[in-house]
Amino acid sequence: MGILDFFDLKPLGAILGDLETPVPVIDVDIVDANLKRWQARSDALGLANRPNAKTHKLAEVAKYQLALGASGISVQKLGEAEVVADARISDILVTFNIVGELKLVRLAALARRTAISVVADSAEVARGIGGAGLVAGCDIAVLVECDTGAGRNGLQSADAAVALAKFVDATPGVTYGGLMTYSAAGGRVKADAFLAGARDLAAAAGLQTATVGIGGSPDMWKDEGLSSATEYRAGTYVHFDRSLIALGACSYADCVLSLLAAMVSRPAPERAIIDAGSKALTSGPLGLEGYRVVHSLGDAQVYNVNEEHGYLDLSRVDVRPSIGDLVAITPNHACPVSNLFDQVILVRGSEVLGRVGVDALGLVQ
Amino acid sequence: MGILDFFDLKPLGAILGDLETPVPVIDVDIVDANLKRWQARSDALGLANRPNAKTHKLAEVAKYQLALGASGISVQKLGEAEVVADARISDILVTFNIVGELKLVRLAALARRTAISVVADSAEVARGIGGAGLVAGCDIAVLVECDTGAGRNGLQSADAAVALAKFVDATPGVTYGGLMTYSAAGGRVKADAFLAGARDLAAAAGLQTATVGIGGSPDMWKDEGLSSATEYRAGTYVHFDRSLIALGACSYADCVLSLLAAMVSRPAPERAIIDAGSKALTSGPLGLEGYRVVHSLGDAQVYNVNEEHGYLDLSRVDVRPSIGDLVAITPNHACPVSNLFDQVILVRGSEVLGRVGVDALGLVQ
Repeated sequence: MGILDFFDLKPLGAILGDLETPVPVIDVDIVDANLKRWQARSDALGLANRPNAKTHKLAEVAKYQLALGASGISVQKLGEAEVVADARISDILVTFNIVGELKLVRLAALARRTAISVVADSAEVARGIGGAGLVAGCDIAVLVECDTGAGRNGLQSADAAVALAKFVDATPGVTYGGLMTYSAAGGRVKADAFLAGARDLAAAAGLQTATVGIGGSPDMWKDEGLSSATEYRAGTYVHFDRSLIALGACSYADCVLSLLAAMVSRPAPERAIIDAGSKALTSGPLGLEGYRVVHSLGDAQVYNVNEEHGYLDLSRVDVRPSIGDLVAITPNHACPVSNLFDQVILVRGSEVLGRVGVDALGLVQ
Repeated sequence: MGILDFFDLKPLGAILGDLETPVPVIDVDIVDANLKRWQARSDALGLANRPNAKTHKLAEVAKYQLALGASGISVQKLGEAEVVADARISDILVTFNIVGELKLVRLAALARRTAISVVADSAEVARGIGGAGLVAGCDIAVLVECDTGAGRNGLQSADAAVALAKFVDATPGVTYGGLMTYSAAGGRVKADAFLAGARDLAAAAGLQTATVGIGGSPDMWKDEGLSSATEYRAGTYVHFDRSLIALGACSYADCVLSLLAAMVSRPAPERAIIDAGSKALTSGPLGLEGYRVVHSLGDAQVYNVNEEHGYLDLSRVDVRPSIGDLVAITPNHACPVSNLFDQVILVRGSEVLGRVGVDALGLVQ
């Protein structure tokens, strides 16, 4: 079984150099290797693997992740959940507080047709989800989100987490599904202690914690800090990127997604302009210097972006490229890049396999 | 005449607080004022006004700009040109080098149905456009792009610009349409001198420079450096944003576009999490501190973004918001924000007028 079994590809009859740019390109053999390696590790650790589809935004890849052994899918918003549910994937966790009447109506509709669970970090959010469960006619499982050091969403103490678990348990339309966190890079030991403490406190209060979920690609290969977890959520590992190279989670060889761009101007000897700017590469540096161009140009960096222009520094490049040449760029952060395109090109090395539409494009809500 | 004459709006029957978030909101009265003020100034200066549609990505707004007196429209890529041409707008300048066979085929198709002109800064690019003109059966006007200090695309000297103008003049399928530049903020006097010199050199070589085009919202209200220009391209001025406040081109009162987001978590007294992260606000700081929340929360800043999470600092906010409350954020740079959404909401103050689809969404090429 391989990822190509999940796509209905039409041959493009193109080579890489023929493709219209800018366009994201995904190497299927590296996707295969990344997904299988992580599933094997999850199996070895006895952890349920619940990958986050926010990175690839492709229902086909989500189905492949499940076929390889994932226990379910996680997503970051309802729009992604709806795309995944449309593909008949039935075990979906939305790792974002669902707030507002229109969103709760959509959640109720999803609960009627799929086994959807959600997170909450306050009574207000849990009460709203309970209302959606009552409308749907079925209880929605709620995981209590804990802030174990990332400084984002979540309860600040085990006591507060268990208080919310009790509230959920007593609220019509929802059931207490367990605990979850997104741990900051390097913060998993602390997260583990927080979650274990909350789980034990909940047990003492008579509440069974079915799931203890932890997430994040940065620490995915580390062994420590997994004593309490029953489930792991990783997203970016399907593609990897420069930010995860910097954090030691992968190498360039593991990076799946590259952005193919064309050289459109050579205004000065050491400067080239490519047709990929912030509307293709995003503008976020993530604390990294430049964007690395991996193929064909050694260490050349994209040192600036405007909306449609990328500025490429050729000062350390031996063979200077010509107008029309294509370059493949490894993004700093893959997830917001695939978010910008309505298609991706599947390749195997330099062979073009076909084009895939991105179902979740523009689903900002 | 007002902008609402150009939209076929269906009433939403909603108030601002009912809208599903995140969603961009545009105040039509401020759009009206911004567009009319700039058109009046262009008229007073005797400058052709050629606004760039990349900012709003709405054919209806482009039509309104023309109705107010704009001489034509400029765009940053072929996908935008096609959307504008579909709306029967016939005078379109693409201010980006068109490179590659597939793009040149699209350019030829556009040339058959509209008066399209393009830029070039090399013989290679001009030759490709000439081929498209021959395929289309009509000459395509080429403006020679000059790098007058921005360090992006363009010829580096007046001599080089005139050499390319001569090449264009001698190339089948294209005509020499003039000179253009994007001048860096504060760089217009230098740009003007460059362009005047190139124009005079071209004249000495027997070439008439029909258009001298200059662009950029940052310097749009400055009087100096306009001696040679016949045409001005501004894009962001329709919306304005924090980056243009910082450059002195506008005030908060002129900013049209705000991103409406919901408070989804209050994990700590001084921290709120909103449902607008880098996939809604973009990640680019543009050298500005945070993102300013203009309505309802004084000086509260979005101090960090993940893909779906925005981190709001409430330490200096007197009245602390509750979960479910909406906040309106003025983006640092408006253009990449409207690029992320398939819809915008038109409002007048706090009155919701209707919803508009964004035709150019996902047209990355």
